[in-house]
Amino acid sequence: MWCISREEIARRRERLLDEVDRAGCQAACLFGPVEVFYFSGFSFLPTERPVVLVVTPAPRSLLLVPRLEEEHAARDACVDEVRSYPEYPGRRHPMEFLRDILGDLRLAGKRLLADADGYSSGMGYRGPRLSEVTDGEVKVVSDLGARMRMVKSPEEIFLIRESVRWGNLAHAFLQEMVAPGRSEAEISWQASARATDAMLKALGPHRVSWGIGEPGAAAGFRGQVGKESALPHSLTTGAVLRRGDILVTGAGANVGGYHSELERTMFVGEPDARARRLFNLMLAAQETAMEAIRPGARCADVDEAVRRFFADQGLDDYWRHHTGHALGLLGHEAPFFDVGDDTLIVPGMVFSVEPGIYVPGLGGFRHSDTVLVTEHGIEVLTYYPRDLESLVCEV
Amino acid sequence: MWCISREEIARRRERLLDEVDRAGCQAACLFGPVEVFYFSGFSFLPTERPVVLVVTPAPRSLLLVPRLEEEHAARDACVDEVRSYPEYPGRRHPMEFLRDILGDLRLAGKRLLADADGYSSGMGYRGPRLSEVTDGEVKVVSDLGARMRMVKSPEEIFLIRESVRWGNLAHAFLQEMVAPGRSEAEISWQASARATDAMLKALGPHRVSWGIGEPGAAAGFRGQVGKESALPHSLTTGAVLRRGDILVTGAGANVGGYHSELERTMFVGEPDARARRLFNLMLAAQETAMEAIRPGARCADVDEAVRRFFADQGLDDYWRHHTGHALGLLGHEAPFFDVGDDTLIVPGMVFSVEPGIYVPGLGGFRHSDTVLVTEHGIEVLTYYPRDLESLVCEV
Repeated sequence: MWCISREEIARRRERLLDEVDRAGCQAACLFGPVEVFYFSGFSFLPTERPVVLVVTPAPRSLLLVPRLEEEHAARDACVDEVRSYPEYPGRRHPMEFLRDILGDLRLAGKRLLADADGYSSGMGYRGPRLSEVTDGEVKVVSDLGARMRMVKSPEEIFLIRESVRWGNLAHAFLQEMVAPGRSEAEISWQASARATDAMLKALGPHRVSWGIGEPGAAAGFRGQVGKESALPHSLTTGAVLRRGDILVTGAGANVGGYHSELERTMFVGEPDARARRLFNLMLAAQETAMEAIRPGARCADVDEAVRRFFADQGLDDYWRHHTGHALGLLGHEAPFFDVGDDTLIVPGMVFSVEPGIYVPGLGGFRHSDTVLVTEHGIEVLTYYPRDLESLVCEV
Repeated sequence: MWCISREEIARRRERLLDEVDRAGCQAACLFGPVEVFYFSGFSFLPTERPVVLVVTPAPRSLLLVPRLEEEHAARDACVDEVRSYPEYPGRRHPMEFLRDILGDLRLAGKRLLADADGYSSGMGYRGPRLSEVTDGEVKVVSDLGARMRMVKSPEEIFLIRESVRWGNLAHAFLQEMVAPGRSEAEISWQASARATDAMLKALGPHRVSWGIGEPGAAAGFRGQVGKESALPHSLTTGAVLRRGDILVTGAGANVGGYHSELERTMFVGEPDARARRLFNLMLAAQETAMEAIRPGARCADVDEAVRRFFADQGLDDYWRHHTGHALGLLGHEAPFFDVGDDTLIVPGMVFSVEPGIYVPGLGGFRHSDTVLVTEHGIEVLTYYPRDLESLVCEV
């Protein structure tokens, strides 16, 4: 199965209970869909309807879901018990059902650790806070799950490595299809559909769990085509590729809920001398970053090394963003390779490394590779060619 | 252009300022990406980096973005001014730049209306609350934008009608590809890629703005294949279609940020008598709902009519969810056709109508149509065939 084992999910809950204990609390309540998935293995479409995971030191785990998810949760969630409320908003609000559960678990009046003071969603949800349906204190630690997810386990790294494979395939299809006259949307949808089909057939489709979003591989440009590649998140859909365009791509895959990141600077036909020079500076900036990543260094050190490189090379006007971010269940996670992030780098962390050079009127230059922090440095997990000649698309 | 006009965005901000005034506030601060898009027309990839829209009665609108979005916001956002902070977390936190802006706009110490007490994101963001960077009171109304979005304008309805067209095409491609032996993932990715390509070529791709997510059309099953169709959000990817399967589909499109919803119960080959009977009951339940939707009724009335139908027909064991939800910028929005939602139905609201019958061990039966509330009743915007014979896929 391309998913995290039940045993690992049980270990995550043990670590969560250590946090509960350290915080002087009696149980944990989790409302975020990412947190629910991380601690229960349950993937669902988040909507107006709250889903809540309660973990107590018994140890006991209880998942509260809307009625429409009951059989789904009974089938997929690694928890001791599933309970349901009829519907949101319903004649009785879902949070009242949570109040009952806290009573049944003898948690009324007890101190609770939570990732948020209740459910929240842009999809029309309104409701009382957790602290309004319990008499005990609620200690909110919004990055509770985020901190626990910073260091990846061998099972997580295994899925991220698998994600790399299918992101690589999506990117290879994307590059094959690059040709003057084709639109970015056409290329990216076709490359993504082909790679997803191949991935699911190769992995055995019924064996790939979801996570936050559908399993599959994807590659595209996000509008970084031609001069618009100077805007890191340009978000056009209509760019038609032309001879001479600079392209910045993005590819990855969701395998069992885990992601990787692969981005490349490519050229539609031979680049000129200025573009070559900027490409090589970008490669050197990425090398600078990779050399600075080691256990015991701070995340800020990596970004500072890159910022020094930019200053030394007179590139400050072309700087737009920090050097990278952690990733895993989500495409961006803490910590960040950013001058303001003092988090210590430790083995098992997984990061993107992607310093970018953006020249208005010319284009953008950015590779992103996914790296795993090891005992002594890094292993670069992505293996798509990084050299210029491999990234010139023949026209 | 397939997007909301600058004039309409200006009108939205006028209405927002009415709310600011009514709440006894001096300005509004918006942190949610949906709210930022609704009141500024600016689409962006939400990440760890906060984006904040400040609207004052001058009238004046200012968008604070990270450096990497500066040129993008200058190109696309309908605001008076764009300012940027270098990066998140950065040497100085983005919220400190917001503090400066509030000072410059003479809002320090003034009462502010906000959709949230600061930015929040699962992508590793941490930071001070809005109320910690201003001396004035912060009045949080989390459904500020959601309430304003309930009644759709003619421009919004125009985009939703266009979304219906491309959802219909994606669904037609999906139905064409249904065949025993094919996997749900293969069919849905191919249908979606083909429909998106057609949609963007038909509309002129560079003219379609994003919204929350990429423009395009999509159709799929979300795991509702065969017996698993009894689970409304089953979320498998590996189901291989077989003769005799009951299918529940879903299709829609993002056109200029606006959505529609089209779902159909289909059969791989001729259904048996029991499946026919349940299909017809589902159709009758949907008719019951549609007849109950009229201006002046409450949302709960619609769901109550359907619940009475379920009770009368002995279907209560097969009930799983409420009758429908509003939609627009998001796939689900308030209000809801739910026994617990007393919102008055008024012309211009757009809803899904989708009572479902779910029989464990057999399958699910649900159509979803998108309807517009008119002066006297409804207009059904989706027009994909609803009758059984049209939905039997030849095998």
